[in-house]
Amino acid sequence: MDVNHQFRLASRPAGMVGREHFDYVEEPVPEPKDGQVLVKVLYISLDPAMRGWMNEGRSYVPPVAIGEVMRAGTVGRVIESRSEKLPVGADVSSWLGVQEYAVADASALLEIDTRLAPPPTYLGALGMPGMTAYFGLLDVGAPSEGETVLVSAAAGAVGSVVGQIAKLKGCRVVGIAGGPEKCAWIVDQLGFDAAIDYKREDVHQALREHCPEGVDVYFDNVGGEILDAALARLARGARVVICGAISQYNNIDSMRGPSNYMSLLVNRARMQGFVVVDYMSRYPEAMREMAGWISGGRLIAREDVVEGFERFPDALAQLFAGENVGKLVLRVADEQS
Amino acid sequence: MDVNHQFRLASRPAGMVGREHFDYVEEPVPEPKDGQVLVKVLYISLDPAMRGWMNEGRSYVPPVAIGEVMRAGTVGRVIESRSEKLPVGADVSSWLGVQEYAVADASALLEIDTRLAPPPTYLGALGMPGMTAYFGLLDVGAPSEGETVLVSAAAGAVGSVVGQIAKLKGCRVVGIAGGPEKCAWIVDQLGFDAAIDYKREDVHQALREHCPEGVDVYFDNVGGEILDAALARLARGARVVICGAISQYNNIDSMRGPSNYMSLLVNRARMQGFVVVDYMSRYPEAMREMAGWISGGRLIAREDVVEGFERFPDALAQLFAGENVGKLVLRVADEQS
Repeated sequence: MDVNHQFRLASRPAGMVGREHFDYVEEPVPEPKDGQVLVKVLYISLDPAMRGWMNEGRSYVPPVAIGEVMRAGTVGRVIESRSEKLPVGADVSSWLGVQEYAVADASALLEIDTRLAPPPTYLGALGMPGMTAYFGLLDVGAPSEGETVLVSAAAGAVGSVVGQIAKLKGCRVVGIAGGPEKCAWIVDQLGFDAAIDYKREDVHQALREHCPEGVDVYFDNVGGEILDAALARLARGARVVICGAISQYNNIDSMRGPSNYMSLLVNRARMQGFVVVDYMSRYPEAMREMAGWISGGRLIAREDVVEGFERFPDALAQLFAGENVGKLVLRVADEQS
Repeated sequence: MDVNHQFRLASRPAGMVGREHFDYVEEPVPEPKDGQVLVKVLYISLDPAMRGWMNEGRSYVPPVAIGEVMRAGTVGRVIESRSEKLPVGADVSSWLGVQEYAVADASALLEIDTRLAPPPTYLGALGMPGMTAYFGLLDVGAPSEGETVLVSAAAGAVGSVVGQIAKLKGCRVVGIAGGPEKCAWIVDQLGFDAAIDYKREDVHQALREHCPEGVDVYFDNVGGEILDAALARLARGARVVICGAISQYNNIDSMRGPSNYMSLLVNRARMQGFVVVDYMSRYPEAMREMAGWISGGRLIAREDVVEGFERFPDALAQLFAGENVGKLVLRVADEQS
């Protein structure tokens, strides 16, 4: 009988998340009941939001309970089916968590077309990060042609897509990323107009240089000092999209608030948050458009793949260290197997 | 020959503004030229924004220069006229600064009707604070009937009007103010549904009690801890109107940013700033509506009057100490004189 390995939440981190906050558990592979399928997980998604789900308290989703399998997005393959909806061999996207196998109701799984894009892309540009970029930029940021769009964590899963969509919409696009490799990638490969390396450059000065007319839309994935620098550079009527605050998620003390928020007043600007699941009914429309851009070569979807289920805690640490370029995923099993 | 007393900016304060930042100056009363009038100032407005105008640097208006008469809103009476537009005896509202007399182009002055409301009301509910309340609440906050509106500095010039307009629009209104007198006034006289005394109560707990469904519109005049408490209590889709941050204006260190700003994400909320002068073309419409409410007894306009031109620095200190109830004005001369 096969073994199902899992990472379960062992304790709630104060500060940086690490291996010690998870239990590595072995269980028998479960059996599907009527209407259910057994899925073999191929890829597990690593997302900044996972850190928030480990905290206690009210948020847009309940926290992961102690002892529960860590919540995560997954793509996998149906290997046993007791549902007519999903035959053995179907590839599916869902929230099966950090484990190698899972049983689920067939109706809770989204079948994906791996001829259109490879499986990990359904965790990236065609998954939650891509939807986040699409609706956050277009619906909340609402950029117009010719405007300047600034995005942080610009080489990440969300930021890299935000910048490319903004370019497709005729905007001037500036990305903030850490390190020369990421900066070169977003300018040379993704077509951003400029990149700011926050690890080497004075962000305030670089923003003056690259955004001479100010920032019309700032898509914030990081919070902290970079959010403050962007606020100081807003154009009149600017929109600040609050998507995340990865620089703050592992703080031991409370969050750092944006001390330049009165720039919203001076510049008649707004700062707005959103949660991508609110747009779920519009995912099919967005996925069709994004898949068209990808297959037409107008949108580059890149994944950064870490190999091996047992490396999940390391991969999560890499995410918060900002070491990935593109969407970070964990490969659990061979697609061809 | 008459003497014109003035307060001119002597130096830029670091921290709390005081008498030492102004020079008290005597000058001859100026003579109007063709098209101009000489105005005797009756009332000078004391506004939180004055503190910002004393700082160097970019804002929505240029700073007051060192040596310049301190900028202030005024109402006064024309005592000498070389313009057909404004006869001697006309009452006018304008930005004549902290001085007893001023010459101005007749076209730069707004004639006011003191049969409709007494002169100081044109610095309060029918002046900039009233316009700020009207457009900030209705245009930026956009409350709907039945929603919960929270306002800070609720017994102040802006906050007291915000709450009353929100009541007229059918909202549940909660005010935050300092001290039992202010709290009693906004509930008993102005008709707020509840008041929170931030000096005596735990604001977080009081918000849970008085805003059980959350806060749909928060009109922020204060910043700091109260802004954070309000953010923690937002309802889904809430609007936070950034009007001012009086708790932060006299800081020596940098502004305190709202560390609970990620509540904007969780609650799909927005935080938006505005500057009232952008609505100037719509002031007449708003003033007509507000004057109708005042004369109909549906909106109470209250001014807190400090007597004597030379007490300007004390009056400004009272404003930042939060000692006034209603609109704080300085009486410079007798209306009947």
